[in-house]
Parts: sequence; structure tokens; C-alpha cells
Amino acid sequence: MDSAEEPRSKGSKRPESVSGSDFLQLDIGQAPPGGRTEWLTARIRAAIADGTLPVGSRLPAGRVLAAELGVSRGLVTEAYRRLTDAGQVAGRGRAGTIVVAAPLAPAGPGGPVTPAAPRLPGAAVPSRRAGRVRPGGQEGPEGLPGPAGSSPAGPGGPFGPGVAGPVVDVLRGVPCRIDLSPGVPDLTAFPRTAWLQAERRVLAGLTAADFGYGNPQGAPALRSAVTGWLARNRGIRADPDEVVVVAGVAQALGLLAHVLREDGVRRVAVEDPGSLGARQQLEYGRLETVPVPVDGSGLDTAALRAGGAGAVLLTPAHQFPTGVVLDGERRRELLGWAAAGGLVIEDDYDAEHRYDRAPVPALRALLPDGVCYAGSVSKLLAPALRLGWLLVPSRLRDAVVAAKRYADLGNPVLAQLVLARLMDSGELERHLRFVRRRHRRRRDAMLRAIAAHLPGARVHGAAAGLHLMVTFDGAAFEDTALAAAALALGVKTHPLSWHRIRPGAPGLVLGYAAGPPGELEEGAALLGQALDGLR
Amino acid sequence: MDSAEEPRSKGSKRPESVSGSDFLQLDIGQAPPGGRTEWLTARIRAAIADGTLPVGSRLPAGRVLAAELGVSRGLVTEAYRRLTDAGQVAGRGRAGTIVVAAPLAPAGPGGPVTPAAPRLPGAAVPSRRAGRVRPGGQEGPEGLPGPAGSSPAGPGGPFGPGVAGPVVDVLRGVPCRIDLSPGVPDLTAFPRTAWLQAERRVLAGLTAADFGYGNPQGAPALRSAVTGWLARNRGIRADPDEVVVVAGVAQALGLLAHVLREDGVRRVAVEDPGSLGARQQLEYGRLETVPVPVDGSGLDTAALRAGGAGAVLLTPAHQFPTGVVLDGERRRELLGWAAAGGLVIEDDYDAEHRYDRAPVPALRALLPDGVCYAGSVSKLLAPALRLGWLLVPSRLRDAVVAAKRYADLGNPVLAQLVLARLMDSGELERHLRFVRRRHRRRRDAMLRAIAAHLPGARVHGAAAGLHLMVTFDGAAFEDTALAAAALALGVKTHPLSWHRIRPGAPGLVLGYAAGPPGELEEGAALLGQALDGLR
Repeated sequence: MDSAEEPRSKGSKRPESVSGSDFLQLDIGQAPPGGRTEWLTARIRAAIADGTLPVGSRLPAGRVLAAELGVSRGLVTEAYRRLTDAGQVAGRGRAGTIVVAAPLAPAGPGGPVTPAAPRLPGAAVPSRRAGRVRPGGQEGPEGLPGPAGSSPAGPGGPFGPGVAGPVVDVLRGVPCRIDLSPGVPDLTAFPRTAWLQAERRVLAGLTAADFGYGNPQGAPALRSAVTGWLARNRGIRADPDEVVVVAGVAQALGLLAHVLREDGVRRVAVEDPGSLGARQQLEYGRLETVPVPVDGSGLDTAALRAGGAGAVLLTPAHQFPTGVVLDGERRRELLGWAAAGGLVIEDDYDAEHRYDRAPVPALRALLPDGVCYAGSVSKLLAPALRLGWLLVPSRLRDAVVAAKRYADLGNPVLAQLVLARLMDSGELERHLRFVRRRHRRRRDAMLRAIAAHLPGARVHGAAAGLHLMVTFDGAAFEDTALAAAALALGVKTHPLSWHRIRPGAPGLVLGYAAGPPGELEEGAALLGQALDGLR
Repeated sequence: MDSAEEPRSKGSKRPESVSGSDFLQLDIGQAPPGGRTEWLTARIRAAIADGTLPVGSRLPAGRVLAAELGVSRGLVTEAYRRLTDAGQVAGRGRAGTIVVAAPLAPAGPGGPVTPAAPRLPGAAVPSRRAGRVRPGGQEGPEGLPGPAGSSPAGPGGPFGPGVAGPVVDVLRGVPCRIDLSPGVPDLTAFPRTAWLQAERRVLAGLTAADFGYGNPQGAPALRSAVTGWLARNRGIRADPDEVVVVAGVAQALGLLAHVLREDGVRRVAVEDPGSLGARQQLEYGRLETVPVPVDGSGLDTAALRAGGAGAVLLTPAHQFPTGVVLDGERRRELLGWAAAGGLVIEDDYDAEHRYDRAPVPALRALLPDGVCYAGSVSKLLAPALRLGWLLVPSRLRDAVVAAKRYADLGNPVLAQLVLARLMDSGELERHLRFVRRRHRRRRDAMLRAIAAHLPGARVHGAAAGLHLMVTFDGAAFEDTALAAAALALGVKTHPLSWHRIRPGAPGLVLGYAAGPPGELEEGAALLGQALDGLR
């Protein structure tokens, strides 16, 4: 079972002590020469994953473990640092180094729901956001009109018929007071100062040639930094030559669609429910999408096999929108399918954001030759940066680089080098740790608010990520009607049916990371009002 | 004169000591009230720039300077910190604070060239660029390997057979001493300080929502700034709603190729000679290109009509590579063809750079409904920014915005807002006036050098732009052989035949904007040597 409790809450209890390497059954003789830090890190990680070191337990003091293993203290310190960076352990001052991430547990439907908070008055709530004027002459709170200059919402609003352009874009253009759209991190936390300082240094160090046409595959410095990031945070070992810098996961999917189609692929399996945006991206790339059901264990691999698609796009670490983690057996089946010639496209969209469980290894780490891996800084730093990475099996790399080259000759260079600096200096990991704490508090606030204001809502997938999903099992209303009623009250959400291909229970996908707890509470209260109106 | 010299190489010598403010002739009484830190920083920077404080010299100790000036030590420390951040000085422990780089003086891409360098021997010339190790783990001088990780040049070099990937990319990856490739402005002039200041202001003014998913069509602030720029510089009146922000002209062509193909267009006329890169871009977008001859009046409109293509891509203001301007009669004929249903794609790639003639009005200004207009900052500021604009007839706009949305969800927001600021503040126009003077001097130097070293070369299209074309009329050699011989001597050029579809006289396309006059002189001398070898 996952625990939504902050490790802080156990701070009052003295963490259970672990005496040393005996407990971990470590034998340094097993470590490969030159790889002892990696080995020690991996062994401790495994001990956390299998419950040998439960959440709240204390790691041996560095000097004790070093002495017992007969290694330098610096080596142990480095291993602890990596685990700290990965969010699995945390220094607690004199209490030592504590395990803070629970072992992997399936985030089953129902998720943790905590005791009720008092219900807010149902009357109109004064608008805190609508009247805010922003510099720069931008238009709405999102600065985004409907695509193609159409009226931001078709007749009936973005949830009704007649919407022009992708519905997600249209919704984005509608002003609102409280935005619970999924997929956006806490943007108030964007590290403006660190970004600017890094950019100053980058600008000072550039040669004239660096301002010229760059490498379409991406700046070597960033490709190198990304491999470090992926090794530390996602367990992926890659060479910088394997990394293609892209303008986010959306572009990664567009490039892959082009390359796969040229390669003879016509049908790509997608998760159902699954991201509407990703599906539209593939379809714009002239690929047919084949829905494959998702259950409590993740993608239904038997259905995938039966569907006969040549490739599958999925979100194994934190399925969108259900939050389910692809379990071990499905994982093995999927990798078997890939080893037999299927191509896996792994959208690792928010893998760094997790609260109550250990990181789920990326599929790419297990089968580099069968997995295309896409990630970005959209949920780490900001979507506005349009910067991400794509790793593909070596047989596809030339074609993907060519597609990127013809797409735009490569990402802008300055931002690539700034990001490389932030990654190499540890600044990005610091930022991640910072926002993770905030996101976790917001997640907890959202769970409390849902329990208080949305009776009958079942919560899914709240152990990680920046959003959760609620379903209203057995309810008779359309979730688009609920979303429209909520929007009329000033609250923006995604109806679950947007992300479904086959019909199912009505629900909502609720982002909780972007706004402060008070706003989440208010938003849930207004959702409750909208729900009352429908019932 | 630029100093690309590494201060490191002087590190073994004891830095020359500077005794104090007397040496710098500082009078704090000249500092404006409240601006003494800025004043001191600027004075030291000026002393570095004018050689008073040469690279390797030591700044006075902070406490000494503070005492002499009668200011706080913190003020001096802050000034030194700013210079450190700018990469101009560096702390060297007990050796004090050392000048490590002159401010942004012209640092030619080929590194320092001493005036009136004697003609180099024809044998192997030690490469000054290939071996230079740059920070950040970048690879070559351009940071650009061959596409798809292939060896940078196929058998026979980039001008021989067996080249993998676009030849222009492959050439870009080859180290050289003197780069006369066309299409690159003076990149040493990139306004680093103005860019950083604008970015600081942009970052300070952004709301959290601005860091989210932006408008795929482009930030409203930049679209508005672009309309101002086009009105002032290109005589185009447009509404911000008509502007689509793109990642440069290459992406503009890719988006248009997609949209035109969906619209039923299969064949697009291109200029012959004309840009190889543009042609490849259209062909990658699954359009057939139809060559139309260019003569002294520009594109042959009768041949265009006879060719039967539904659209034509051309460079009317300064034809690439010939430099011809589309004359009045051809212009009328072309607009008549467009008014009858043809679509004109106007690549206005270097229209702002002109020396000896009045600006040529953009075709878009004359027939908005028949002309797609593409421009970028690649030749105004730097290709590395990947930022440009596309105006299309209103009937195509929704489809182009959708194509941009599915390409990458829109350009990164920060750089868009920085550019908007530089355009709105007049900074970009100041920069253009500055580089135009430099480019003109370089153009003149190039013309002199060609006259001196390339007898028999006919020069074309030198009244504007960043490159010129030379032909060797009646010569029997292949221009790829000439380019290969020049590259063997360390000089990079484009053989004219790359940009030809039907055969013609051999020639070269020579960029003259990127390097200082001395380098152009030396490059032409080496070209002369290569030519002698062939004849």
C-alpha cells in the first residue's frame, strides 16, 4: 500500500536504525572494477525496492559503512548523494540518512483518501484571477486564443459540438479562475535567477561559430548532460550519440510518426484511456491509432498482441490519465512483444514526479533496441521551453535525425546550452526536489478537497505525477456536461471522456500541481457545486 | 582586433601587475550618483577593450582600489564580480584578478589572423581550428558532426560521391581555417549584452501562466513586433493575426510543403540556380520541384507559366545564389500569374542587407492574397536562434497554424519575447545598421581580393546580401574539384553546381560576412592557389 504520509510526519519517531553492511548483505568483492559507486548505489536501491530497507529506516552512517566495506568514505557519500538526488533517501541532520520512498506498489483504483475537511459555502466565490492584468499585451490568463484565430470555443463551449481545432488548445484559450487542467507543473517555481545566470555564463563562453547553424541532432553539451540526467534519474545508460534533442514530446511523436510511416508502419497501438493529444499527434502524422485497454496492471498486452499494430505508444511509469504503473508481468510481456519485432514508444512524461513509491525503471533501460524513449522539461521546468529528448533504437537514428533536420534544422542553441548547465551543475535536481515537495503538498490538499467536496468520486493514480483522475462509477451524466458546468463556475478540467476511445464511467482528469492548496480546495468546492447541479 | 588567444597560454608567466587606479585614470567624481558600480565596471571594461589592461594583466587588489577611489570595498567587489560573470576577468587565487578576455571585439570564426599574413605555402597548413578544444565537450568548430552520425565526409570529401545526408550539413561538419560558406552573418557581432538584458526584463515580467503551453501561432507580443519590423523594413502591412512564428525559413518551407500537399499541390517551381537546401526541404515534404531558369532579370516567368506548377518558391529581393533582383516586368508577370491562381512563396532571406541600392519591396506587400512570405533572424542575428516568421494568404492560415501546432506546439516562448523586445526597442535596427557597415567593408575587401587572386572570375550579385557568386565562364574544370582543392587548403566554399539543377559554368558561392577582411584576403589567395592547381 502506498503511503501518502510525508516522511516528515515520522520525524518525531526515531527512525529504526540499520546497523551496517551486514544488514544489506553487501559484498564489495562483487562490484566490478571501476564501478563500485554504481554497484553500491544499485544495491541500496534494490534493498529499498524489495522492502529490506523500508520507508523511514535509516541507512548506516557513511563512515561505518565505508569501514565495513573497506572503501573510501567518499564513495559511500557519493552513493548516498545519488540516492538523495533520486528522491529515495534524504538527509535528516543528526537523525542520519532516511529512506523516504516506499517500495513500488500498484497505484490501485481508489487511492488514498483522507478525512473530510469542512465544506465551503456554495455561493459565488470572488474571482481572484479573472481581473488580473498581465504585462506584454497578452490576451487571456493563458495567453492563448483558439487555434486558427477562431472564437476560443465553438457553440456550446469547448466541451460542446462545433469545436474548431484540437479541443485541448481550444480549452486552453478559455479564460478561467482556477485551472485544474492536467500536465502543468508549479510554474511559479520556475528558477528564473538560475536560468538567467546560466545563460549569462553560456553567452560569455560562446564562440562566434556557436551562433551559426548547429547540429540538427542537438548540441553535444546537452546530449551529454541528458545522458547523465537519464542515468541518475531513470536508470538509462545511453551514449550522447544516441540522444536527439527535440522540441518536446509532441515533436518527438511527430518525428517518429514520419519515420515509422516511411518505414512501412501504418497502425500504432495507443492506451485507452490515453492521452488525446498524443493520439491526435500520431493521427496528424498519418498513422492509424489502435486502442488497447488499460486496467489496474497497465496496458493489456494480450489485447496489444491481438491488435496487430507494429508499434505501441504508452506511458508505463505513470499511465496517463489513470496513473496506473505497468506491473512486472505486463512489463515482461511487453518486452517480449518488442523483442519479437514490435516497437515500443515510451512517453516518460512525468516520471520524475513521484511521492509514495520508488521510481519505476524506464523500459528503455531494459531493451534499448526495442524502445523509443521520449522525455522533456515540460513537467520539470516549463512547457514554454519546448525542449526534450528522444532516444531511438540505433536502426532508426539516422532517419530520426534527418526528420529533425528537416523539421527545423535543430532546436535553438542557447536554451540547449543553458539546460545543459543546469543539468550538469545539479541545479535541475535541486529544482526537482523543491517542486516535488510542493507538488506533494498540493496532491495531499487535492485529495482532502476531493474527499470533502466530491462524494462518490473514486480517485485513481495519486502516488505520482501532476494530476489525478476521478471517476463517478455508475453515474448517469456525461463528464463533458460536468466539465462545462465547472467551467461556467470558473474551473477548468479535462473530462475523462476526452482521453477515452471506448466509452466508460464519467470522470475528470484534475491537475493539482499548478495552483496553491487554497485554490485546489476552492476548485473542488466548485466542482462539487457543478456536480450537485447535474445530479 | 580580436583576441581569441587563451589566457591559459600565458598562465605560466607571472601576470603583469597593475598598481592601482592611477593606472586606470579613474576619477570617481565622474560617476553618476547611484550608478558608481556600473560606472566602475564600464571603465574597467573600456580599459580592457582599448588594451590599457591587456589580457593577462592583473587588476588592482579590491581593497587597494577601494581605498584609492574612496569607495566601499563591496562596490569594487561587485564590479569585479560583474566582469567575472561576463567572462572578462577571473580570480586566480593569490595571483589576484586577471584579465582573461577582451570584450566582444570581432572574433572571426577562423580565429585570429594577423594583418597582411604572407601567402601560405600550398602544402598542408596546420589547422588552427580543428585542434582547439572548447569547453562543454563540443566536437568540431561548428559543433556539428555529419548528420546521422556518419563520418563527416563521405569518400572523396563532401564534394565527392558517397556523401551521406544533405551535403550542406556534411560540409558544415568539416573543420577548416577559413569558412566562406554563404548564409552566415557576422556572428561576432551578436548583441550578447542586449540579448541578456532583454531576457532579464522578460523573465522579470512573466507570469506563471506564461511558462505554460503557449500559443502555437506564436507569442502575441512577437507577432505584433514582427508586423512593426516588416512595416518599417519591408513595406509590408500585416495584422499580428496574420503572422505565424516559426523556427526559421526551413521550418516555414516544411510547414508549407505539408499544407500544400494536403491541398492537392504536387509540384512546386524552384529557381535554377537556386538554394539546394530549400529544394531538399520541399522534396522531403513530398513535393516535386520543377526547375525554372534565372537570368539577369530574375526568374523566367514564361518558363514558370509553361512548367505548370501550382506554386513557386523564389528569392525576389536578392536571388540565391546569383544576387539578381527580380525586375519590374518580371514582377508584374509573376503577380499576374499569382492573381490567376498560382501561389508565390517568397523567401526574403537577406533582404535587410543591402549596400548599393534601394530596398526592393517585398512581393507580399503587393499581393497579400497570393504570396506566402517567410523571413527569419538567421541573417539578422544568428542562425542558432531558430526563429522566424511566416505570413500566408488568409485561406491557408488555419492549416499552417495547425501544421505548426503539430510540428512542435509552437516556438519556445522566452526567445520570442526577447526578440519582441529587441524589435520594439529599436535595438535590432541599431544592430542591423552596425553589422551592415561591417558587412559592407567585408564585401569590399572580398571584391578586392577576388580581383587580385582570381583572375578570370566573374562576380555576380554583390550589391546586397552576405555572399557573392563567381563564375569561371568557359572553364573546363568541375567546380566541385575546385571546392575540394580549396578545402584541402583549409578554405570552405559552396561549389555553384550544388545550387544548379541544369549544368552551367563552374563557379563558387562565397560568403564574406562572417570573417574579418584579413581572412577574406587570405581565403581568396588560397582559392587562387587551388585554381592554379586545376588549370
